[in-house]
Amino acid sequence: MESTPADRNLKAETNAERKGPPPSRRRFLRDGAAMMGGALIASAMPARVEAAPLAMPESMQTPGRPMPAEAYGMPSKFEGKVMRRRTDVFVNRQNLSDWSMTPLQSQHGIVTPNGLFFERHHSGTADIDPATHRLVLHGMVKQPLMFTMDDIVRYPSVSRFYFLECSGNTLADWLKNASTTVQQTHGLLSGAQWTGIPASWLLNEAGVQPGAKWVLFEGADGSTHTRSIPLDKVMDDAMIVYGQNGEMLRPEQGYPLRVLIPGWEGNVSVKWLRRIKVADQPWYFRSETARYTDPMPDGKWRIFSFEMECKSVITRPSGGMKLAGAGPYEIQGFAWSGRGRITAVDVSVDGGKNWQEATLEQPVLDKMLTRFRYRWNWNGGPAVIASRAMDSTGYVQPSVDEIKKVRAIVGFVQHHNGIFPWSIAANGEVKNAIA
Amino acid sequence: MESTPADRNLKAETNAERKGPPPSRRRFLRDGAAMMGGALIASAMPARVEAAPLAMPESMQTPGRPMPAEAYGMPSKFEGKVMRRRTDVFVNRQNLSDWSMTPLQSQHGIVTPNGLFFERHHSGTADIDPATHRLVLHGMVKQPLMFTMDDIVRYPSVSRFYFLECSGNTLADWLKNASTTVQQTHGLLSGAQWTGIPASWLLNEAGVQPGAKWVLFEGADGSTHTRSIPLDKVMDDAMIVYGQNGEMLRPEQGYPLRVLIPGWEGNVSVKWLRRIKVADQPWYFRSETARYTDPMPDGKWRIFSFEMECKSVITRPSGGMKLAGAGPYEIQGFAWSGRGRITAVDVSVDGGKNWQEATLEQPVLDKMLTRFRYRWNWNGGPAVIASRAMDSTGYVQPSVDEIKKVRAIVGFVQHHNGIFPWSIAANGEVKNAIA
Repeated sequence: MESTPADRNLKAETNAERKGPPPSRRRFLRDGAAMMGGALIASAMPARVEAAPLAMPESMQTPGRPMPAEAYGMPSKFEGKVMRRRTDVFVNRQNLSDWSMTPLQSQHGIVTPNGLFFERHHSGTADIDPATHRLVLHGMVKQPLMFTMDDIVRYPSVSRFYFLECSGNTLADWLKNASTTVQQTHGLLSGAQWTGIPASWLLNEAGVQPGAKWVLFEGADGSTHTRSIPLDKVMDDAMIVYGQNGEMLRPEQGYPLRVLIPGWEGNVSVKWLRRIKVADQPWYFRSETARYTDPMPDGKWRIFSFEMECKSVITRPSGGMKLAGAGPYEIQGFAWSGRGRITAVDVSVDGGKNWQEATLEQPVLDKMLTRFRYRWNWNGGPAVIASRAMDSTGYVQPSVDEIKKVRAIVGFVQHHNGIFPWSIAANGEVKNAIA
Repeated sequence: MESTPADRNLKAETNAERKGPPPSRRRFLRDGAAMMGGALIASAMPARVEAAPLAMPESMQTPGRPMPAEAYGMPSKFEGKVMRRRTDVFVNRQNLSDWSMTPLQSQHGIVTPNGLFFERHHSGTADIDPATHRLVLHGMVKQPLMFTMDDIVRYPSVSRFYFLECSGNTLADWLKNASTTVQQTHGLLSGAQWTGIPASWLLNEAGVQPGAKWVLFEGADGSTHTRSIPLDKVMDDAMIVYGQNGEMLRPEQGYPLRVLIPGWEGNVSVKWLRRIKVADQPWYFRSETARYTDPMPDGKWRIFSFEMECKSVITRPSGGMKLAGAGPYEIQGFAWSGRGRITAVDVSVDGGKNWQEATLEQPVLDKMLTRFRYRWNWNGGPAVIASRAMDSTGYVQPSVDEIKKVRAIVGFVQHHNGIFPWSIAANGEVKNAIA
């Protein structure tokens, strides 16, 4: 288990190689790609072979960091720039109502690390002691219930993968075109595996009374954030959640308890959950009449527009990156839908004139981020790239012009799921290309 | 978006409720469970209703923590005990060869947070600057290649979920029965989504020469940890990995680059990967002849025993926990197999006399942790609980007696996948029940 003489021989071999010739310049395949087993395999990428041969780095000549007796590990110091960040496009901090965004351009796979999961609070982050936290379920039920966290965690549980997206995601850009990176344009979006109890189990235990139609969820934060949700949705797939990505919820995500309403705008998944009330009508909170509403072309405002409709965005290459020159690139991004599964994603590299179908990476899960990939051979000229997604209901992500036919693009434009373009200049610079 | 008068009305309502009667004691269902839609739903759990009515906590009367401009978030201060930990059963630190274990008893879902992912190093943790890191691919190939990290990340990539388990996982217990918790008995096991390049793509680009049969992977750490892997396995599903659970690898997991050999013992997934060499025979390193080998009944030692065979363990309830009294409990745990998918898990609550089939939670993925669940009504008497898993090859996790027929249980017993029991005493205490 320790390092050994035989292992050390390798170092000798390595040193010998330092004196040998450097690996020659990498072979190019003429068409930029090879076929194997019927599948397109990795293109020959532009070689960037160093003149120096294989050197023995410092890390092989010294022991590494010793292991602490116990620890919660952190990323490499060389990844210090990968952080969630507040926006500077809108500043609204007089009452600690704020949000921070996920660095989607740096995300690999479909699971967002908890330390990078986007935040949206209406009065800062509550730090709640689980030993004192209580959840009450009352209203139009046969038997009101009160739960400690020990009660909740003792229940049978389920774990399910779902995306979470703020209804305001991408709103800044359609107003100001002020954002540079996909973190700023689409970073109020993350994906996770959630663990908790189906809300229907608790409601069935309490016994819902005939005539009940709506359910209130109340947070124990300074804003008492509260929303009314139709009973049908709650009984369908809402979860009372305490776990996220393998551990307990983070404070910013509602520790120790939140509701998770899959596929619906993030703010209805009330955090720091302390109260559930059943009734025969909604409560019409200010968060339901003056906020989280959508302006319509006739001047009226749509309320209770919960579902996050089918949407996608290219995360690589994306704003702020710079391509190294003409040649093969993999275009990558996320697609998601609050109505079901992603069934297809198209990619355009000519500003929407032509579209080609991208590959979807498995597992493709209901109401979860889906990663799409498309191999592109950039000719080095100016280009505009974009993606459009389709979900299992047949709904296709709309263009901005299509949205304008049914919605008014004024004020805070919630639920904006328009096709989003990035431009690539001849020098390789990638920029937000909203007209 | 800020807190509002309407929201504040809820606080008034909440205060009103403080004066009302407390929720009455929760209704018990006679059989401890109810049927709904044909499926067993949440049992009525023992009520622990507080005498106090719904109080307004401090968190609702004050604003929360403000949001930093940029951050990498951390768990709640109330979860400070959930850490990965070194073992104290074996101490072997003279050369920084050490390991730390995942708190499986606290894990929700199938993804292990990167901060809790188990570690195994042969000479401490290397901290490598990706800007200077190089990967060389040479030996029996038509064209040797050298890659920078920029080259590697520019390639098309794939993301896949796989477990990782140290071959020595659970070894301590069969020798000493010294471990208390499942973190100590089985914590050299974690699950993640990995992102990188299929190794076959790079080998095909280099062009493997006829007659090649083995592949060397060399780490850039102080121990130069190195292993020989059959070419067939490398071409089948090995990945050159830089991403884990949505972000770049942590230093302890080989930042910036490692190989991932799905389903095989953890140490062959060489970290801090800097060299791949192709040859017609293995290298027989000390890590392949004097370590990571299995004693057989005839006194010989088996080498190159790579596959982690089908295994499972109950994580809840598990050692160190205490049940609150007779009544319904959900037994939960993990099952996994290096040979494929988990197809079934049985649970026994009478020390292995009788077995009942547990429920497997979706998605059930190839060579990944699978969570099983089984609802149990504890009668309050002494009990011994255990699980046994079956995989898609038809292989069934063996008992210790079955293992003894084909292996010698001496020294460091690698690859021990025996059925593992926990005892529950009448007072509810759960303990390691190895005889």
